Amino acid sequence: MRYFKSDNTAAVCPEILAALATANHGTALAYGADRWSEALDAVFGKFFETEVRVFAVSSGTAANSLALATFCPPWGTVLCHAESHVERDECGAPEFFTGGAKLSLVSGTGAKIRAEELRARLDWFEPHVHGVQPRALSITQSTERGAVYTAAEIRALADIAHGRGMIVHMDGARFANAVVAQDVSPAELSWKAGVDVLSFGVIKNGGMNAEAVVFFDPTRVGDFEFRRKRAGQLACKGRYAALQLTTYLESGIWRRNAERANRLAARIAAAAPGLLSVPAETNQVFMQLGAQRIAALSREFGFYPWGPTGSGEARFVCSWDTPDEDVDALCAQLRTLA
Amino acid sequence: MRYFKSDNTAAVCPEILAALATANHGTALAYGADRWSEALDAVFGKFFETEVRVFAVSSGTAANSLALATFCPPWGTVLCHAESHVERDECGAPEFFTGGAKLSLVSGTGAKIRAEELRARLDWFEPHVHGVQPRALSITQSTERGAVYTAAEIRALADIAHGRGMIVHMDGARFANAVVAQDVSPAELSWKAGVDVLSFGVIKNGGMNAEAVVFFDPTRVGDFEFRRKRAGQLACKGRYAALQLTTYLESGIWRRNAERANRLAARIAAAAPGLLSVPAETNQVFMQLGAQRIAALSREFGFYPWGPTGSGEARFVCSWDTPDEDVDALCAQLRTLA
Amino acid sequence: MRYFKSDNTAAVCPEILAALATANHGTALAYGADRWSEALDAVFGKFFETEVRVFAVSSGTAANSLALATFCPPWGTVLCHAESHVERDECGAPEFFTGGAKLSLVSGTGAKIRAEELRARLDWFEPHVHGVQPRALSITQSTERGAVYTAAEIRALADIAHGRGMIVHMDGARFANAVVAQDVSPAELSWKAGVDVLSFGVIKNGGMNAEAVVFFDPTRVGDFEFRRKRAGQLACKGRYAALQLTTYLESGIWRRNAERANRLAARIAAAAPGLLSVPAETNQVFMQLGAQRIAALSREFGFYPWGPTGSGEARFVCSWDTPDEDVDALCAQLRTLA
Amino acid sequence: MRYFKSDNTAAVCPEILAALATANHGTALAYGADRWSEALDAVFGKFFETEVRVFAVSSGTAANSLALATFCPPWGTVLCHAESHVERDECGAPEFFTGGAKLSLVSGTGAKIRAEELRARLDWFEPHVHGVQPRALSITQSTERGAVYTAAEIRALADIAHGRGMIVHMDGARFANAVVAQDVSPAELSWKAGVDVLSFGVIKNGGMNAEAVVFFDPTRVGDFEFRRKRAGQLACKGRYAALQLTTYLESGIWRRNAERANRLAARIAAAAPGLLSVPAETNQVFMQLGAQRIAALSREFGFYPWGPTGSGEARFVCSWDTPDEDVDALCAQLRTLA
Repeated sequence: MRYFKSDNTAAVCPEILAALATANHGTALAYGADRWSEALDAVFGKFFETEVRVFAVSSGTAANSLALATFCPPWGTVLCHAESHVERDECGAPEFFTGGAKLSLVSGTGAKIRAEELRARLDWFEPHVHGVQPRALSITQSTERGAVYTAAEIRALADIAHGRGMIVHMDGARFANAVVAQDVSPAELSWKAGVDVLSFGVIKNGGMNAEAVVFFDPTRVGDFEFRRKRAGQLACKGRYAALQLTTYLESGIWRRNAERANRLAARIAAAAPGLLSVPAETNQVFMQLGAQRIAALSREFGFYPWGPTGSGEARFVCSWDTPDEDVDALCAQLRTLA
Repeated sequence: MRYFKSDNTAAVCPEILAALATANHGTALAYGADRWSEALDAVFGKFFETEVRVFAVSSGTAANSLALATFCPPWGTVLCHAESHVERDECGAPEFFTGGAKLSLVSGTGAKIRAEELRARLDWFEPHVHGVQPRALSITQSTERGAVYTAAEIRALADIAHGRGMIVHMDGARFANAVVAQDVSPAELSWKAGVDVLSFGVIKNGGMNAEAVVFFDPTRVGDFEFRRKRAGQLACKGRYAALQLTTYLESGIWRRNAERANRLAARIAAAAPGLLSVPAETNQVFMQLGAQRIAALSREFGFYPWGPTGSGEARFVCSWDTPDEDVDALCAQLRTLA
Repeated sequence: MRYFKSDNTAAVCPEILAALATANHGTALAYGADRWSEALDAVFGKFFETEVRVFAVSSGTAANSLALATFCPPWGTVLCHAESHVERDECGAPEFFTGGAKLSLVSGTGAKIRAEELRARLDWFEPHVHGVQPRALSITQSTERGAVYTAAEIRALADIAHGRGMIVHMDGARFANAVVAQDVSPAELSWKAGVDVLSFGVIKNGGMNAEAVVFFDPTRVGDFEFRRKRAGQLACKGRYAALQLTTYLESGIWRRNAERANRLAARIAAAAPGLLSVPAETNQVFMQLGAQRIAALSREFGFYPWGPTGSGEARFVCSWDTPDEDVDALCAQLRTLA
Repeated sequence: MRYFKSDNTAAVCPEILAALATANHGTALAYGADRWSEALDAVFGKFFETEVRVFAVSSGTAANSLALATFCPPWGTVLCHAESHVERDECGAPEFFTGGAKLSLVSGTGAKIRAEELRARLDWFEPHVHGVQPRALSITQSTERGAVYTAAEIRALADIAHGRGMIVHMDGARFANAVVAQDVSPAELSWKAGVDVLSFGVIKNGGMNAEAVVFFDPTRVGDFEFRRKRAGQLACKGRYAALQLTTYLESGIWRRNAERANRLAARIAAAAPGLLSVPAETNQVFMQLGAQRIAALSREFGFYPWGPTGSGEARFVCSWDTPDEDVDALCAQLRTLA
C-alpha cells in the first residue's frame, strides 16, 4: 500500500533523531531545568523575531487545549470553524482542559473563517450571565482543508476578536506548510497579524512527539505551567522534547520538509485538477471522487474518505518523507480516473 | 409597564403558597427523607401513568444539566437545537455538569429538530476515539420558539436516537403548555413517545423554586443522586420543594395555568397575524416587528427583542397571571401597528 | 420521636413565610432584577457595617463551593479542617465547582483550626508546579463540633493566610449561633477579623431554601455571577430567595432564633456535663455515650451517632423550633443515664 | 556537581535509542495502529504471565490519573498515602482527570499504607450521598520513601479494598526497583496480589518519554481510550512510544538497570547507616542529616531536602546511569560527616 492518510504516518526526520543521540549522556535536570529546555525561548524568539515564551507538550491536542484553557474560562466560548481539529478531532479535549468552555462554530469553505461570518456568529452572544462569553478565536493555519490564511485575513479576524476582548489562537499543526506556501515570514503569519498564542506543530513535519505552545506576549502566560503539569504534559526528561523543537528550527528542516510536502501535493492536484473539491494550497489535497473512484484507488492507496458518510470526497496528504514513486503512482491513477 | 418578558416574572400560584403554609410546622427529616419528598415518585407516577423516579432541584438549568450528566459522559455529545435553552441560556451549565461534554447543534425553524436534520448531523460522528460520541438527544417541549412536538414527531426522533445508543431528554420547562395545546396526555408526550428523562417545569407555570427530573426507567437513575448533592441541589428542607411539585399536579393548576397562558398568547397572535414570524402554538408569540414598531411598543410594554442584534424580531410571553388588561392593551397596540 | 438530628429538620420561621406571601403578586423581573434582590447589598451592608456584595443561592453547599471557586483555581488548594462540612458532607462539591482543586486537611479538637497547625500544614507546600498551591483557608463558624472562633483567633488565622496570598472563607451555616454566643457584632466576627468571603447561613436558623454569599471586598467578586448561573443556582423568581435573606436580618429573627437554639443546647449540656466530649458553645452538643446509652436513647430520640463507626459518640442539635418539652425529656433521660 | 536529585535526570538507555532508530523509516499508521503499538498487549502479557491490555502515555502523572479516572467517578475518592506522588507531586492531576474526585489520605512510615490504617480511614466513609465514596486504593511500588510492599502486604490491602468495592491501583513509577529488590516475579507483585491496574514506569529506569497503563482485567478498560485521546495523551506517531515500552521489557534492561540503581543506593546507605531515616530498600536513600551536613554536602552534590521546610532530612536517588565515581564521592563524604 502507498499511504496518503496523513502526515503523521511519517517517520522522524534524521536530523532530529541525531540530535537526540548527541545529547543522550549525563545528567540533565528534570522538568525543564535542562539547558536545552532553557534555550527554547531564545531559539523561538529568534525564529519569530520577537520575545516569546515557549513550552513543550507531547501532542497537538494538548498544545491547543492548554493554550485555550489559559485564556478561556469555563463560562467562556471559543469561536472556531465547524471543521476544525479542535472541534472534530480531539474528542472534546478543549472542553476538558478549559473546565467545560463551549466551542461555538463558524462555517466557511476551505475550513476557513471569514470576517463577515465571524461577525455574524458573534452577534448571537450577549454580555449577560445567561450565555457563555466569547473569549477566544481559534483558527488553523494551514486549515484542515489545506487552505491558508493570508496575513491580511488573519489581521481582519484578529481585529474583530480583539475588539470583543477575545484572544487569537492559531492551531499551527501545519504552520510551516502555510509559511512556505506564501513565502512570508513566520512573524508575519503570527504575532504581526494579531495572533496571541500559537500551537506550533513539529510532529507532522518531521518531529517525534513534541509540539510547542508559543506565547507572543510573555506577560500573558498566566497559569499555563500549572495546567501543563496537572495535565501530565510536563516531561521529566525535558531535553528530548526541547531538542526536537530547537533542532527543527535551527537545522532548517521546518522549511525543507514543508516545501517538499507542499510540492508533492501540488503534483497530485495537478494530475486531476477537475476533481479538486477545494484548491490545494499546501500539503493536503481534497478531491470529489465519488464512490467508484474511491473504491478503485483504495486497492493500491491508503487515504481517508472525507466529510459525512457517503460524501464521495477523499483526502490525500503528503509528508516530508512521502516517496516520490508513491506520488508518481497516485498521479498516474488519478489521470486515468479523471 | 406591562410585562411580557417571560413567564418567569410571574408570582407563585396561591395554591402552592398555601400548601407550603399547611406543612410548615414540626420536624421533617432533612435531605428528602420527609413524607412529601417520599411521595414524589407515586404522585408523578400517577400523573404519567407509569412507574417513575422523581427528584426535585432548584432550577430548570439544574434539571437539564443533571439529567444530561447522568447519561452523557465527558467524551460524549448531546444533540440539541441551536436555539435551545441548554445551548443558549444556561451559561454552559450542561458542559459544567457533564465534565465537558459537547453540545452538537441542529438547526430548524421553530427551534424544532426534524428527523432528517438529526440524521444528517449524526452522519458527522464516527465511532472512534478522535471524536466525541453521540449519547443524548435533547429536545424542548414546548420549544424556545413556542412550537410543539407531536407525539409522532417525538417518536421519530427517539427512534433515531435509540438506534444510535442515545437517550432522549426532554427539556419540559413549558411541558404543561405543550400538553394542553395538543389535548393529549402527559404520558403520550413523554415516555410513550420515547422520552427517557424529562426536566419537568413547574416554576414558569406557577411554582416558586422547584423543578423535577423524571426518569421513566427507574433502573437508569445511575449516579443522579450523588451528582445532585455534589451540585448543591439537594435541598435540606425538602418538604418545601416536594410540596410545590405535588401540589402543582394534584391541584390541577398545571392544566389551568397553562391553558390560560396559551389562551392569552393566542389572543396576541390573533391581533396581528401578519406579523407572526413563527406560528404561535403555546404561550409564546414571536413577531417580526422591525425597529420602529419595537421602539413604539417599548414605551408601554416590557418584552425582549429576539435573535441576533438588529433582527427586528420580538418575543411576547404570557404567564398564568398575566393581567387580561395587559393583553387587551397589547392587542390594541399591535392592531394599530400592523 | 423527638428529633435532635439537625437544625435543618426545622420548619420555616413564620416571619419569613409571611414575607413571601406579602410579595406574591404582580410581575417581578427575573434573575435578580427584582427590587428585593436589588436590596440585598444594602440590607447586608447595614448588617455588616460595611459595603458588601451579596448573592443568593439555594443551599449551603452551593454557597461554600461557589465562594471557594471564585478564589481558588483548579491547581490551587483550600486548607480546611478534617471534620469540616466542605470536606465531609458535600460529596465533593468544592472539587466539582473549582474544577478539581484539592482540599488539604488540618486537624484540631472541636473541629477548629489552630494557628500553629495551619502553619505546619502550610509548610508542606512549595511554590513550584509540581504541587497544588494554597489559595484559600476555609473555617466554619460555629464549627461542625459546635465550637466558636473568637475574633482574635480568626485574625491570627487570617494573618497567616493573607501572608501566603490566600483568601479567608468562612462557612457560616451557623454564623448567627456563633455571633450570639459571643455577644459581638457580625462585623467583628467576619471582615474586621480578616474574613474575605462568607457563606451566610439562613436555612438552618429559620429560612426555607436560600443562603447568601457575602463578599466583603466588592471589587473581588470576579466571575461569581457566571459561576452561579452555570451551576443552576440563579433563581429565576429571585424575590422569593431575596426576601428570605432580608427578612431574616431585618426582622431580628436571626438573633432571636439563634439565641433560643443555643439556650436549649446549653440545657442539654448541663444535664450531663460529664458526658460532653467537647464543650457545648452553641446549638450543638456532643457526648461520649457509648453503645448502650445510644441504644437506650434511640428508642425515644432521633439523633446521629458521630465520628467513625463504633465511636460511641452522639450529636444533639437544637433548632429555633425545637419544642421545650423535647429538651425536657432529653435532659431527664440524660440525667438518668449519666 | 554530582547529581542524586532523581532518577529522572538520567539519560535514555542506549538500547532504547537504538530501537527507535531501527524503526525510523517508512510509513506507520498513526494513533496506535502501527505494528509496534499493536504488539504491546502481547509483550506485556508475556512479561506479566497473563492476558492484559496496555496503553502508552507520555508521563507517569498521566498514567496514574488516567488509570484512576477510569475507575473512580467524580463523586468517588481514592485512598492513598499522604506522601504519595499522586497527592503531592502531580499538581492535582488526579482531581483534574477524574472530574474532581477526592484523594483521601492515609499516613504510615516509609510512605507505606498498612492494613489497619486503611481500615480505620475507611471507617470514616458512609454509604450516603453526603460524602464521597471510596472507589480506589492507590499504592506506590516502590514507595516515595524507597520502601517496598511485599506480595502479602499488597494482598492484605487488596482484600480490604475489594471487600469495599474499590479497585487497586499501583503507581509503579519504580516498579522494576521493587521487583528486583524482592526477587519475585512481576506477576507476584501485581495481579496475583490483587492489583487491578498498574502505572508501569519506564522513564525513570532508562526510557525517554513513555509509560504504560496495564489493565489486568481486559474487560475493565472502560472508557480509557476516550479519556487518553481527550487528554492529548494519544501519540500520533505511536511507534516511538511503543518501542520504548517493548524494548524495555524484551531487552532485559528493566532488570539490569533497576539492579544497578538499587545496588548503588545500597552503597550509599551503608556509608552512613546511622543517618538513615527509613530503611533503604530500593534506589532511594533518605537520611536525617540536619542543616549543617546538608549545607556541607550541597557544595559538591545535587540532592533534595525532604519533608517540610527545615526538617533536616535529605533524599539521594540513584539511577541506571549514576556514575560509580559519584557514588564513591558521596559515600566518602557521608562517612566523614557521620
